[in-house]
Amino acid sequence: MFSLAVDAMGGDGGPDVVVAGLALAADRHRGARVLLIGDEKRLRPILARHPKAAAICTVRHAPTAISMDMKPTAALRVRDSSLRMVMDAVAAGEAAGVVSAGNSGAMLALAKIVVKTLPGIARPAMAAISPSMKGDVVMLDLGANVACDTRNLVEFAVMGEAFAKAVLGLPAPSIGLLNVGAEEVKGDERLRQAAEMLRDSPLASQFHGFVEGHDITAGTTDVVVTDGFTGNVALKTGEGAMKMASGLFRQVFTSSMAGRLAYLLVRPALMRMKDWLDPRRYNGAVFVGLNGVVVKSHGGTDAQGFASAVDVAMDMVTHQFNDSIRERLAHMTTLTTSRPKMEAERQAAL
Amino acid sequence: MFSLAVDAMGGDGGPDVVVAGLALAADRHRGARVLLIGDEKRLRPILARHPKAAAICTVRHAPTAISMDMKPTAALRVRDSSLRMVMDAVAAGEAAGVVSAGNSGAMLALAKIVVKTLPGIARPAMAAISPSMKGDVVMLDLGANVACDTRNLVEFAVMGEAFAKAVLGLPAPSIGLLNVGAEEVKGDERLRQAAEMLRDSPLASQFHGFVEGHDITAGTTDVVVTDGFTGNVALKTGEGAMKMASGLFRQVFTSSMAGRLAYLLVRPALMRMKDWLDPRRYNGAVFVGLNGVVVKSHGGTDAQGFASAVDVAMDMVTHQFNDSIRERLAHMTTLTTSRPKMEAERQAAL
Repeated sequence: MFSLAVDAMGGDGGPDVVVAGLALAADRHRGARVLLIGDEKRLRPILARHPKAAAICTVRHAPTAISMDMKPTAALRVRDSSLRMVMDAVAAGEAAGVVSAGNSGAMLALAKIVVKTLPGIARPAMAAISPSMKGDVVMLDLGANVACDTRNLVEFAVMGEAFAKAVLGLPAPSIGLLNVGAEEVKGDERLRQAAEMLRDSPLASQFHGFVEGHDITAGTTDVVVTDGFTGNVALKTGEGAMKMASGLFRQVFTSSMAGRLAYLLVRPALMRMKDWLDPRRYNGAVFVGLNGVVVKSHGGTDAQGFASAVDVAMDMVTHQFNDSIRERLAHMTTLTTSRPKMEAERQAAL
Repeated sequence: MFSLAVDAMGGDGGPDVVVAGLALAADRHRGARVLLIGDEKRLRPILARHPKAAAICTVRHAPTAISMDMKPTAALRVRDSSLRMVMDAVAAGEAAGVVSAGNSGAMLALAKIVVKTLPGIARPAMAAISPSMKGDVVMLDLGANVACDTRNLVEFAVMGEAFAKAVLGLPAPSIGLLNVGAEEVKGDERLRQAAEMLRDSPLASQFHGFVEGHDITAGTTDVVVTDGFTGNVALKTGEGAMKMASGLFRQVFTSSMAGRLAYLLVRPALMRMKDWLDPRRYNGAVFVGLNGVVVKSHGGTDAQGFASAVDVAMDMVTHQFNDSIRERLAHMTTLTTSRPKMEAERQAAL
């Protein structure tokens, strides 16, 4: 069995970036076996230039590729695309997970139909890691579901907790539910019900309650749960603010002779900071809640970014991410099904 | 008539901060006349220390004050609080606007009931100015309405545009609707309908379409329209990210001898940047869509921050903010009412 099926054709950089990324990843995951799917003619010469990647890869030819702007519905109709074939490999039990830098919408649609949703989960979500002042934070949903109900949010909490365990290696990650205030009365009914369910669940001791926007970078909790609309806006707003801050600091160091001198003095510290914030380090959004590990690399990333996405996928495969979700869900189901029963008993007792 | 009725008792700093803030504002708004409402015994000695504030203020005694943690429903029952009395002054036509650093929930509830919603507006919204790489941006709703429908969003666009004209002095502010992608098909029905209505409205030439989270700090549009849940999360997430960035840069300058030396070199540039990002410069969230100008100063601000909130209120009073909304709404109503008529005519023609 292959550890991962990798789509060689996705992303702006195509197979060159993917294979170079696999060469970097090969050093970090010695036991990994990769099924590399794409245009064989294009792949062979690239692999010849990257012997480390070639050593861990088995190539499978895919006649077509899904373009970055193809609509998900159209992508579903193409049976012989590299993206479809990596999903098929997971569905057939040939590989434990998928990595692609391709079209996200097509990827989610194919994953749902081919890899399928984990039993007990209503809807998969998109999760990723982002930096905070207290260490890395897992955020989900980042856009797979524009609208979410109470059940979705509770399931996102379960999946986010398992993700933080597998990828951040935390023994008991804390969970926050994103809201407009920390008080119990804040937000809508959907959020208040989700909070109540989590307080009554096996995750109760890890559930911190409501958190606010500024708690994401403050690192108040290890996992931040929200709907796909809010999560997508929050992620991009935070990235935008960090970009503005970097631009302002660049000005400080470039707008005067004194600034350029100061830059020379603090260059090593600035480089360390830049590395820490490097978006490539946080590359690899994960579709959680599927019958397999499905990792989306940013389309515009380079080899190092792609290797980070492979790291995330390997961590999830190694730590049997889905087993940990299944186990939690078993307990949660007992809880949710026992509730109406208790309610019925209470009614009968009156 | 008074330009503003000011609640002397709101905010963590109470009357000391409010009066010191008015003293600063007095220099910038020579013609302003302020009705200062609060505990007269406490106010007299403070005003004696701030002759500039005393020169523009008329004091009115209020026997009670609304605490920062009082529930809105409880605050509504107190008839003689300073917060209630500033609202009464606007409702009675004694003052054109209100400034308070008090309890926001109580403020919105009192404003809705006493000052009342502008005719033609379904729900007031909370707007504020935030920094971007291309200049200041108006964002709304920031939390007055957790859930919003199409009509609310369209009205927020109308009010945000008027706000950007009055406070930022822009002749034709551009408007963006916050979404998870820029493409027309993104988001939910509510957002797509709001976009369609704006494209068919007198604001069409200023409507940019959908914007994403990172467009806020990029300054893609002058006005960013969203529901109160998303707006509140986005605002706080952006603030959190900027705070994390500042903390990281502080480390660069303090973690080594070279860093401390570099700091001395770039100190003036850093100070300019700090001034530019100063949250006090952006103090003064505004409840738009009311029969009067209602400005909320941050509870924890200092005199300079309170003076900024007074600046915002004075700008809105001077530029007859509400007249500009009324004018727009007149055109929008023609549009929205003529649509079903056209639809009926089309049906009849079949």
